[in-house]
Amino acid sequence: MPRYAFFGPVGTFSEAALRTVVPDAPAEAMPSVDATIEAVRTGAVDVGCVPIENSVEGGVPATLDGLAVGEPLVVVAEVVLPVSFVLAALPGTALADVRRVSTHSHAYAQVRHRLHRELPGVSYVPATSTAASAAALAAERDGGPAAGFEGAVCAPFAARRFGLDVLAERIEDRAGAQTRFVLLSRPGAVPERTGDDKTSLVLFLREERPGALVEALEQFVTRGINLTRIESRPAGDALGRYCFSIDCDGHLQDARVGEALMGLHRVCERVRFVGSYPRADGGHAVLGSGPTDAAFARAQDWLEHLRAGGA
Amino acid sequence: MPRYAFFGPVGTFSEAALRTVVPDAPAEAMPSVDATIEAVRTGAVDVGCVPIENSVEGGVPATLDGLAVGEPLVVVAEVVLPVSFVLAALPGTALADVRRVSTHSHAYAQVRHRLHRELPGVSYVPATSTAASAAALAAERDGGPAAGFEGAVCAPFAARRFGLDVLAERIEDRAGAQTRFVLLSRPGAVPERTGDDKTSLVLFLREERPGALVEALEQFVTRGINLTRIESRPAGDALGRYCFSIDCDGHLQDARVGEALMGLHRVCERVRFVGSYPRADGGHAVLGSGPTDAAFARAQDWLEHLRAGGA
Amino acid sequence: MPRYAFFGPVGTFSEAALRTVVPDAPAEAMPSVDATIEAVRTGAVDVGCVPIENSVEGGVPATLDGLAVGEPLVVVAEVVLPVSFVLAALPGTALADVRRVSTHSHAYAQVRHRLHRELPGVSYVPATSTAASAAALAAERDGGPAAGFEGAVCAPFAARRFGLDVLAERIEDRAGAQTRFVLLSRPGAVPERTGDDKTSLVLFLREERPGALVEALEQFVTRGINLTRIESRPAGDALGRYCFSIDCDGHLQDARVGEALMGLHRVCERVRFVGSYPRADGGHAVLGSGPTDAAFARAQDWLEHLRAGGA
Amino acid sequence: MPRYAFFGPVGTFSEAALRTVVPDAPAEAMPSVDATIEAVRTGAVDVGCVPIENSVEGGVPATLDGLAVGEPLVVVAEVVLPVSFVLAALPGTALADVRRVSTHSHAYAQVRHRLHRELPGVSYVPATSTAASAAALAAERDGGPAAGFEGAVCAPFAARRFGLDVLAERIEDRAGAQTRFVLLSRPGAVPERTGDDKTSLVLFLREERPGALVEALEQFVTRGINLTRIESRPAGDALGRYCFSIDCDGHLQDARVGEALMGLHRVCERVRFVGSYPRADGGHAVLGSGPTDAAFARAQDWLEHLRAGGA
Repeated sequence: MPRYAFFGPVGTFSEAALRTVVPDAPAEAMPSVDATIEAVRTGAVDVGCVPIENSVEGGVPATLDGLAVGEPLVVVAEVVLPVSFVLAALPGTALADVRRVSTHSHAYAQVRHRLHRELPGVSYVPATSTAASAAALAAERDGGPAAGFEGAVCAPFAARRFGLDVLAERIEDRAGAQTRFVLLSRPGAVPERTGDDKTSLVLFLREERPGALVEALEQFVTRGINLTRIESRPAGDALGRYCFSIDCDGHLQDARVGEALMGLHRVCERVRFVGSYPRADGGHAVLGSGPTDAAFARAQDWLEHLRAGGA
Repeated sequence: MPRYAFFGPVGTFSEAALRTVVPDAPAEAMPSVDATIEAVRTGAVDVGCVPIENSVEGGVPATLDGLAVGEPLVVVAEVVLPVSFVLAALPGTALADVRRVSTHSHAYAQVRHRLHRELPGVSYVPATSTAASAAALAAERDGGPAAGFEGAVCAPFAARRFGLDVLAERIEDRAGAQTRFVLLSRPGAVPERTGDDKTSLVLFLREERPGALVEALEQFVTRGINLTRIESRPAGDALGRYCFSIDCDGHLQDARVGEALMGLHRVCERVRFVGSYPRADGGHAVLGSGPTDAAFARAQDWLEHLRAGGA
Repeated sequence: MPRYAFFGPVGTFSEAALRTVVPDAPAEAMPSVDATIEAVRTGAVDVGCVPIENSVEGGVPATLDGLAVGEPLVVVAEVVLPVSFVLAALPGTALADVRRVSTHSHAYAQVRHRLHRELPGVSYVPATSTAASAAALAAERDGGPAAGFEGAVCAPFAARRFGLDVLAERIEDRAGAQTRFVLLSRPGAVPERTGDDKTSLVLFLREERPGALVEALEQFVTRGINLTRIESRPAGDALGRYCFSIDCDGHLQDARVGEALMGLHRVCERVRFVGSYPRADGGHAVLGSGPTDAAFARAQDWLEHLRAGGA
Repeated sequence: MPRYAFFGPVGTFSEAALRTVVPDAPAEAMPSVDATIEAVRTGAVDVGCVPIENSVEGGVPATLDGLAVGEPLVVVAEVVLPVSFVLAALPGTALADVRRVSTHSHAYAQVRHRLHRELPGVSYVPATSTAASAAALAAERDGGPAAGFEGAVCAPFAARRFGLDVLAERIEDRAGAQTRFVLLSRPGAVPERTGDDKTSLVLFLREERPGALVEALEQFVTRGINLTRIESRPAGDALGRYCFSIDCDGHLQDARVGEALMGLHRVCERVRFVGSYPRADGGHAVLGSGPTDAAFARAQDWLEHLRAGGA
């Protein structure tokens, strides 16, 4: 049975994401994205669940960089969750009692306007995660030290997990935000092709010059492959050197993806394959004029026919 | 005299960056990147200094998004600072006395390994900024409440600013990191062309299809313009829609940059010009085969000659 | 009044083409395409009419090369004629009397199968032009020397011009062929833009390398301009060096054509503008996603607005 | 033993080209390029030698079209000959005796200026080929009918072949011209790869739109393959539809050529392979940044490694 870990503590969105895939399997809460990734690398666990991208904040640097450098890891599944926060408190707390609110600074950024409108004068206490603020309230209830605040801004999942009351739901300033999580694994069998898959890569360009990036992206375009995400990340220690984290439509087993990968291998300094897995973001592959496997097979047959002296 | 603001509190790297440009001008510390940007937008100040990119962490979402949406702002200067942290404490504190260390979570991520090697068993207290941790020690010294920790991880600038002792210098895990800061302003006169300039843009593509991004980037390539940064940012509320924050070599007044901008204006849904300003990142323009202003002028003369019936 | 010349002798398709434009103006028959072009260059005439392209034979080398090298000339109009041959003879000649047929070798190539089917055993006498064979019969009738053949394969226009009988019409092996003729002039006022125009160019690439041609053609593609003809021609004396004769949709006064020309001027060794003129080939401009003049004007306005400090 | 044919009659440049490959084998003179090609197609002969390209005149339409349509044929060798003409006459003829000169109109075009300078007042008698004019003189000498002219402009090879005197050598107006000939065969074994090969193709594009040609040519560019010739030819009966006759560096067995062919097969309406054969034009392959077979093999190995679950 595979062992699981997630970016903890218990009650985070990352745990919620993992639970949509394995509702009941034992899973370890790790203190950071880095620690989660490292646990997969060392073999302490087999699968780690971490956030990779948020529709408001953008890419999660620790995850992107964990996939780009160090021992190779691959994405074996993705989960997309709506980002929605609740204001949780110990049972018996009234909304008016909440004068101090704690949460992670990223979450605070997303609820700030609403919070200050509903609770004028409320003060903010930083926490290491949204779940940590919920956990601190639960600890106070269970005889631990005073949390130092009355309200925790956390995932609905965390409020349930820690037995807190929900004073207000959907308190995010901007509705509709989503976070994409990935389940990471050491390389091994690639998930089966489903026909609606994505492939993730990291490209390190050979040199800095006008057109180097375009030359690499042409490898997708000439094969009709749609890019669904492209993100530059710092490569090395100084500014001005980047690698590119890329998701495209299609699966490693698709002929056109295979040929694009080979093309990238030839024109890039280095290419890291970071997994092919079923899409879970509600989108569908944009086919463009991209040739099908059948068209690839016909072209291959034709070439072999020619090489055998045919016409 | 222009009024200045920076991403505070007093003593941050952002203030240090601003001080390299205006050493002594009065400048207001703002509680967040968003607040700094907003102060420029409303006219409360004329120039705001915020971080935009870090060679380890990558782009700063709040800055990138502040430039991409809302009332237009432009970059009028950039400053690149080495990212180096000190461990600061109240005068009289010995290294062995430090059992709790406070700083911003981003800074903590960059000094963690070194800190735990040098101070085994040290615990971490989150702070809202690196400067806030220094300020809290200073406040304790000045008769305020106990800071709750003995050591502050902050910029050298902050230790000086708050009169703290430096117990250890250059404690970052990875040497050589840099942060790029930008000075933002409301649109107005564009800084003079120096011959070694950068131009920043935000592109919103017209549609999602294979090649849409490449088609836009071709506008740079066909004019021999080097991209120095490309970063995708979420556009809108759901995953899968991006805008692209781009820096390229050259100045708005350069013929080839002007023509590329016009080309982008035609092929993109929307293009936002975010400033032309002198490079400060130690790099030099990569010219590629890019045509000079003289070549543009000759081409323009030739066209006019043809249109007048010449050959 | 302009003076005209055409690729003669009297009665050629070139004269027929010229007559569709100026039915009655005096016009001089020149002995060759080269001589026609030269007459325009020296100013002996103002306008010369020569064939440039045939839907069966392809480009006419003498015309393409005359436009590519030497003193510049420009196309001021094009005429497209169906290529249809008649078998002409002196009045009183019966089909069965025709044992020898004369025409230009190109015409012979286009009627050969039909001719031998209808007139088994007929022999072929080469002539310097289709009209020359008709003229020789007329000369025989008018008391000149014996032509040495009974049938002339020529244009319907030539049979009428020389008072010959038409023994058979439309004797070409392949129906539907067309020839495109151009009226050449020394550079001067470019014909007015009609909205359905073509522009002709000759490109000399800067160097031989993978992508040099594509780089040049990208100047059209990135501006959404359709190419209607591209033809390589030898450049210089040895094999393997080419220039490219190109027709594209649009007029020199169109913004996108102007910008593409300027782009070509920058990336090519040399570009020769060979005229903008109304389309006469029954086609219509393929607009692709090409930006309109209005889109160019908006982009230009936007750039000027930015350069003036706007946003 | 293979049977040979060439574009005759005996004594043409085409025979001279064939003789550089098979000096003594029996070979049949055919009356036209078309007839030569047809003799190969029907199996009447195994190899046919025809001109394909001239450094002054450009492509030879009959050859290009013979390769583009009808039953497939392939080029199995190329021969490049300098184009140089002699003025030949029957033994005993002095230069001053020559008042009428005969040759093919193409040859006449290439010697005209020189001829008229050296022999003022000379008149021109068209012939069906350069060799035919030499043969007519020989026939007159051997008791046949009077040739009707004193001088024949033909290849040095033809003067020797027919026992004529050479009155003047190298009489071409422009020195250095070359003609490229191809030896055609029915498809079968492709000539061995030599490392300095060329591959010929005919491309039929899928649709007329801006970029369709560029999209096809990108298949070469993205694989670093240099084009050595591109020529548009009419496709179909009306103007405005073209196919493209293309030569590129490399051999069908080269990985990058194979992959480019497959790419073209996918993006074009139709691709015709017209042979891979050793270069004979004095040039060498321009490698550009084109990936080697070894780079292709490494990319292929890498892909297979990934597909087997590696990283």
